[in-house]
Amino acid sequence: MQINPYYAELPANYLFRDIELRVNAYLAHHPDERLLRMGVGDVTRPLPRVIVDAMHTAAEELAHADTFRGYCPENGYQWLQQRIIDSFYRPRGICFEPDEVFIGEGAGSDLGNLSELFDQKNTVAILDPTYPAYVDANIMAGREIVFIPCMKENAFVPELPKKPVDIIYLCFPNNPTGVVLTHDQLRLWVEYAREHKSIIIFDAAYEAFVSEPGIPHSIYEIEGAKEVAIEVHSFSKSAGFTAVRCGYTVVPYETGLQAMWMRRQCTKYNGTAYIAQRAAEATFTPEGQKGIADNLNYYRETATVIMDGLKHMGYEVYGGTNAPYIFCRAPHGWDSWTFFDHLLQQCQVVCTPGIGFGRCGEGFVRFSAFSKREDCIAALVRMKEKI
Amino acid sequence: MQINPYYAELPANYLFRDIELRVNAYLAHHPDERLLRMGVGDVTRPLPRVIVDAMHTAAEELAHADTFRGYCPENGYQWLQQRIIDSFYRPRGICFEPDEVFIGEGAGSDLGNLSELFDQKNTVAILDPTYPAYVDANIMAGREIVFIPCMKENAFVPELPKKPVDIIYLCFPNNPTGVVLTHDQLRLWVEYAREHKSIIIFDAAYEAFVSEPGIPHSIYEIEGAKEVAIEVHSFSKSAGFTAVRCGYTVVPYETGLQAMWMRRQCTKYNGTAYIAQRAAEATFTPEGQKGIADNLNYYRETATVIMDGLKHMGYEVYGGTNAPYIFCRAPHGWDSWTFFDHLLQQCQVVCTPGIGFGRCGEGFVRFSAFSKREDCIAALVRMKEKI
Repeated sequence: MQINPYYAELPANYLFRDIELRVNAYLAHHPDERLLRMGVGDVTRPLPRVIVDAMHTAAEELAHADTFRGYCPENGYQWLQQRIIDSFYRPRGICFEPDEVFIGEGAGSDLGNLSELFDQKNTVAILDPTYPAYVDANIMAGREIVFIPCMKENAFVPELPKKPVDIIYLCFPNNPTGVVLTHDQLRLWVEYAREHKSIIIFDAAYEAFVSEPGIPHSIYEIEGAKEVAIEVHSFSKSAGFTAVRCGYTVVPYETGLQAMWMRRQCTKYNGTAYIAQRAAEATFTPEGQKGIADNLNYYRETATVIMDGLKHMGYEVYGGTNAPYIFCRAPHGWDSWTFFDHLLQQCQVVCTPGIGFGRCGEGFVRFSAFSKREDCIAALVRMKEKI
Repeated sequence: MQINPYYAELPANYLFRDIELRVNAYLAHHPDERLLRMGVGDVTRPLPRVIVDAMHTAAEELAHADTFRGYCPENGYQWLQQRIIDSFYRPRGICFEPDEVFIGEGAGSDLGNLSELFDQKNTVAILDPTYPAYVDANIMAGREIVFIPCMKENAFVPELPKKPVDIIYLCFPNNPTGVVLTHDQLRLWVEYAREHKSIIIFDAAYEAFVSEPGIPHSIYEIEGAKEVAIEVHSFSKSAGFTAVRCGYTVVPYETGLQAMWMRRQCTKYNGTAYIAQRAAEATFTPEGQKGIADNLNYYRETATVIMDGLKHMGYEVYGGTNAPYIFCRAPHGWDSWTFFDHLLQQCQVVCTPGIGFGRCGEGFVRFSAFSKREDCIAALVRMKEKI
């Protein structure tokens, strides 16, 4: 047996695993320190009652013969597919059939697995900096990757590829920079994809943080996007589902890929947990919507606290307005890991080094507003004193 | 963009999707008929109370700030990994480190995704008949497949490959034939893999149904297997988790693949639902073990009822003793789909056609003992009257 040769081209550890190892090494030598975690983009607010009650009800159904259920449909229950269409897409004037909406156990898996649908020889365009899983999944598949630089000079807004590409990963509101695109800016990408017969994989994991008008929540708000875009959503960031595990991926019939993705999911996926689907359904109730909005507002306010605090200390910051992430330039001309290490060692603050998201992230770190408010405030105080 | 060219080589539908479509077509014309479902291997018994209570507790934890949890570790919580080692492997004299046991959302996903670890040029050996996902996942990956025939002539026990192969999928107790291997029979495969430097992917989804002595529950009961075997387990069939979604895959350090699989999971998987992991943990409590054993005994007795009933009517049957499946030769020289259609149209019984599992399954159908007892008995009565 020969192993997949492309794994040798990967960095040894996945970024967040790498950070975890460094943090654990620090804690091994400082067991009594309490860390202020602003690194991984993981939610911290408890779930609204109506969602937890939906999980209780679903769990209880599995305890009784007359309500017991087995395998769920590989692409999800139609009551959830329809609810997503009716609640998220229809109010934006966008329509889908239930079979175009694939319920899954999270955006991370789908973003990785979608690449299986395409020829290995396809060229992939990925923003730099970016969520590292796009890159790693395509390295594993042996594909050529073209990085689209997003830098201070272009306000972290990507320019169209200089040479033709086949597959384009976009994520807006962006991780890690927190930058958003306007309708006009996103339209350029849809037009590019239509002209070059490319496919856009649009990661909409952070759409719920869009709070300003004129910023698209879905790529399908752009005319013609159905033919060239797959959109990946997660309940993780919008509804705090990182432990619950539910997301969805829209593969419009017009892409010509819906049947392939259905075939992939029926072969390699046995459906999303019933309890998670009922929990996702409950997010669309009035009480669920209110609870989610309260949590999102908490995170938004935290983002503002972090942004204002950093600006007040003279830091150069991006994002944070329509996104839960603040991208912050390191002081003193430090590189990302130097700033990371100073924050960890001096302030017991965990951030994410910008270089972990790509070369153009060098010299920056990402702060997450999903962290506890009091930890963020304490972190700012320590940074003021010690950096 | 070019699509993955190998998808064109797949049958249009995944087997169970195909059956679902045929059944739905029948129901569309006979809306008042109640079908007796003995097709898909899906459990029907409710979950034991201690498991449901564990899910309630876990759900409730997510409702409160002081007990809320976010992302679970990509390879699972150590308390579950250790529990599996202590409860399943250690009593059999087998030892693992927690990091060799990867918690996942089900065996189906892992069985499909594991193939990513290997070079595309590797040759794959797959039993015929077999669980169709092994075949389809490797067709999607563009690999050459060598089928190992399992036929009546060899009592459905596979012989070693005639030419060297790199990757070997084995499933015992077998799906669909219900046949098991003895220690000596399984040892031949481990020795083959060691000699040819092959890797065995051992699907142990049905191990809980082994009730006779001398039949291995794990391939690691065979000396030297740790160097050449990955073992995939599911709580779906053993504990009725098809809607809960939890399983685990053991990748021993000795295979040289543990770090690769960790890398794969950290990149393309964001961890198994917390509630599912707590439910899995509860299966190992005394009350959980008793509840599971009661359900398994119910299914075992159903298997005996089906076997005896079919034998009594003169059918030629295999499996059913250490497995939840009965593989039954079609009467009158019919092929699989003809028998399937007669059972559906004349008896309103749903089975799974043997040809769906491979060419050597032609002329057989699979009955599942996961079905409701009264449905199985009713099905036998109708078969006696109408076939």
